[in-house]
Amino acid sequence: MKTDILRARLLEAQLDLAHRREQSVILLLTGHAVTHKGRLVNELNHWLENRHTEVHALGPSSEERERPYWWRFWRRIPDRGRIGIFIHGWYGDALFARAERRLSSGAFRDRLAEIRAFEAELAAEGVVLLKLWMDIDRSTQRRQLQALQKDPVRGWQLNDTDWQRHLQHAAIGALGREMREATAADHAPWRRLDFRDPADQLQRVGALLRETLVAPPDAPSVVPGVVPDVASSAPSIRLADSRSKAALEKEPYAEQLAEAQGRLAINAREAARRRIPVVLAFEGIDAAGKGGSIHRITAALDARQYRVHRIAAPSDEELALPWAWRFWRRLPADGRIAIFDRSWYGRVLVERVEELAPEAAWRRAYGEIREFERQLLVHGTVLCKLFLSISHEEQLRRFEARAAKPHKRHKLTEEDWRNRERWDDYREAIDEMFARTEAPGAEWALIACDDKRQARLRVLESVNQRLEARLVSPI
Amino acid sequence: MKTDILRARLLEAQLDLAHRREQSVILLLTGHAVTHKGRLVNELNHWLENRHTEVHALGPSSEERERPYWWRFWRRIPDRGRIGIFIHGWYGDALFARAERRLSSGAFRDRLAEIRAFEAELAAEGVVLLKLWMDIDRSTQRRQLQALQKDPVRGWQLNDTDWQRHLQHAAIGALGREMREATAADHAPWRRLDFRDPADQLQRVGALLRETLVAPPDAPSVVPGVVPDVASSAPSIRLADSRSKAALEKEPYAEQLAEAQGRLAINAREAARRRIPVVLAFEGIDAAGKGGSIHRITAALDARQYRVHRIAAPSDEELALPWAWRFWRRLPADGRIAIFDRSWYGRVLVERVEELAPEAAWRRAYGEIREFERQLLVHGTVLCKLFLSISHEEQLRRFEARAAKPHKRHKLTEEDWRNRERWDDYREAIDEMFARTEAPGAEWALIACDDKRQARLRVLESVNQRLEARLVSPI
Repeated sequence: MKTDILRARLLEAQLDLAHRREQSVILLLTGHAVTHKGRLVNELNHWLENRHTEVHALGPSSEERERPYWWRFWRRIPDRGRIGIFIHGWYGDALFARAERRLSSGAFRDRLAEIRAFEAELAAEGVVLLKLWMDIDRSTQRRQLQALQKDPVRGWQLNDTDWQRHLQHAAIGALGREMREATAADHAPWRRLDFRDPADQLQRVGALLRETLVAPPDAPSVVPGVVPDVASSAPSIRLADSRSKAALEKEPYAEQLAEAQGRLAINAREAARRRIPVVLAFEGIDAAGKGGSIHRITAALDARQYRVHRIAAPSDEELALPWAWRFWRRLPADGRIAIFDRSWYGRVLVERVEELAPEAAWRRAYGEIREFERQLLVHGTVLCKLFLSISHEEQLRRFEARAAKPHKRHKLTEEDWRNRERWDDYREAIDEMFARTEAPGAEWALIACDDKRQARLRVLESVNQRLEARLVSPI
Repeated sequence: MKTDILRARLLEAQLDLAHRREQSVILLLTGHAVTHKGRLVNELNHWLENRHTEVHALGPSSEERERPYWWRFWRRIPDRGRIGIFIHGWYGDALFARAERRLSSGAFRDRLAEIRAFEAELAAEGVVLLKLWMDIDRSTQRRQLQALQKDPVRGWQLNDTDWQRHLQHAAIGALGREMREATAADHAPWRRLDFRDPADQLQRVGALLRETLVAPPDAPSVVPGVVPDVASSAPSIRLADSRSKAALEKEPYAEQLAEAQGRLAINAREAARRRIPVVLAFEGIDAAGKGGSIHRITAALDARQYRVHRIAAPSDEELALPWAWRFWRRLPADGRIAIFDRSWYGRVLVERVEELAPEAAWRRAYGEIREFERQLLVHGTVLCKLFLSISHEEQLRRFEARAAKPHKRHKLTEEDWRNRERWDDYREAIDEMFARTEAPGAEWALIACDDKRQARLRVLESVNQRLEARLVSPI
């Protein structure tokens, strides 16, 4: 295709993408040094409508370093309708750290597995991926480096890292092959560009990008989890069994509550001092008492340390991005506590039961959630997942009590009654959720809440235990 | 009022705020050290529904330091329906820096003027403010410090800063008075709390907050500008005069374009090296050629350095915050370039003419814009405001040409024709905009665009001149 025609067609395809707002596109470039990635991105960028394009090439900020590794990429995912161009993106860290032996071979392979899961999740959510490996042979690279060094105009572009990467040319080449083999997929293909034919490059990349825009690959039906699906091996937890025994009297409750809150205050302060981030995810049956339990937690915390995130319907900005984005954006910085009042589990609970998400989407979510939680843990987050349950009869009593009290009536909606009618569907979804998302460090605490006092103490106990298990280690 | 009743009524008022989602509330506490601000905030926070509350007490992150001073506060403004509690907030910096003589008295007064403008802008946009000054006399403060120092449980709360602030007690007291006098307003009142009566404090603050929630003060009708309104002293620019003379031929154009872009490339790289942020704001008549001009700019830039922000209708997250928030959130980090394709001037152009904002709101915006731009300049931002104009006849020619070309038809909408009918209204709005928002460092460049080539060269020339004027200084 002639350059002018290609350029016009590429722009046309981009405007169509922007107009439809159904998918976004990520073009990622990585590979050897001095392969003119920057120039290529610039030239391509001139072909595109830059109101719908963004380029990402910078290292992590302090806010990024204080959160799980993938946060820095999640926050840069383009909205539907936009094209994001990443230089090195999530490949550079792994590639160069491994080449310099700062990363073990096992850790490198783990990262590749994470990349596979990340890219599959994006692709399944409407992010179209195209990845370019920029190749150059060693002697051409040396000649380029020498020429650049002598060039009075462009010499500033050169730095020590480029020479270092030249010395590691063979290692980077081999690692690049391993990386491409491990992360190539129909939904996230690799293309190799050889530096020796630079005249052709822009044309080739433009054509590849246009093809991708015009005929994006099918989204993957399965997202490969880094954490295997453990379903059914974990015991299914029967909610009917969760009724608590004898009620707890007011006085021993007050005493035990004060003690548990005192413990929590000390634990939370120690977590802040050691800059350990904490995530509490509350799920539960309507009227089980999530709000009251969260209050008993926050009563023990310094208000400067935590934030409660009430998860309701997504905003329009959130709807323009993969579903998990709205949880990533709320992750706490190191030393801080995020309390989720309902959480990412809505995907496999309300969205499943109310058919807000197609079956393929919520089925896929189990693996996505396991991976999300694993990444929190890898970063050092203390994760507490609490499920508050009540019996069917107790729920009815509480609904009726709410309906009777004017100042509590706002807490009871039509939706609550509707959900109640679907009790069995929810139970099935809850059981499957437990079975598929139980993992070491991400265990569920099931709290029987028919007796509110006992429930609150058990919530506190559960959070305290989780924190103490972590704080027991000296660092 | 009895504590229990007060607490219930406060909660009721908060839930009403959350339900209505029309206003947000900021409670700010500042004042002397060891006045138990943290404890008070914690206790108050327990009274509130923490799903609709957020507490802010931390120092600036690197991302915050890399942007104009007020960015760190703008990003923390609570959404409508929420309560934000700020410890020291935007007062702590000024107060303590001045007490330690890191801030001159003139700079301190300037900051107070900025605070007045900031608070008035928030209040006018539906943010209700309540500010508390925590007082303590010097000898009580010393006794408190000594007691804390001996306390094995709470001793960790104490640090050197507390003792330092004790030594500066008189200065902080005097500065506090000056600060309160300068920033007290009906829409942002100060209340003084004396430490010697701590039992009463929570009750008092709860009552104050409830009063504020139940009967929020009227929004100010005038926002005091730090920059005075200069209207009419600046010459009104007649758009009809903007027709350009003889057309520029293709060849000299190509040559001059390449030269101007080369200059821009060098200037932009130098700005990046010196970590100078750059903001380009493009406004103009429909079909004047904003898009084409922006392309000629970005063609000269490294794609990694800039981002184009196309300003269309606000998102629902943006609608939940003061109107200027969506421009603050897009400000570039140091060394980067943000190009606004339409800008904050929409407030006094399309929102005025189409009556999307009430007259009081867009009238107020002139001052808010002057202050916004002044804050960019104070931070060291290079600001270029470009207005691209064409004659009424030329616009018709371009609309008809677009309608005739299939691949350009998408660029012409019903709205364009509607806007064209309101040409005179827009002209009036544009003239007033020029007159009221011209300021040193924030001058408008009016570009006559009937001849596209000359227009593009003049856009580049204007941006280059602005950058060079800044880069000429050695630091």
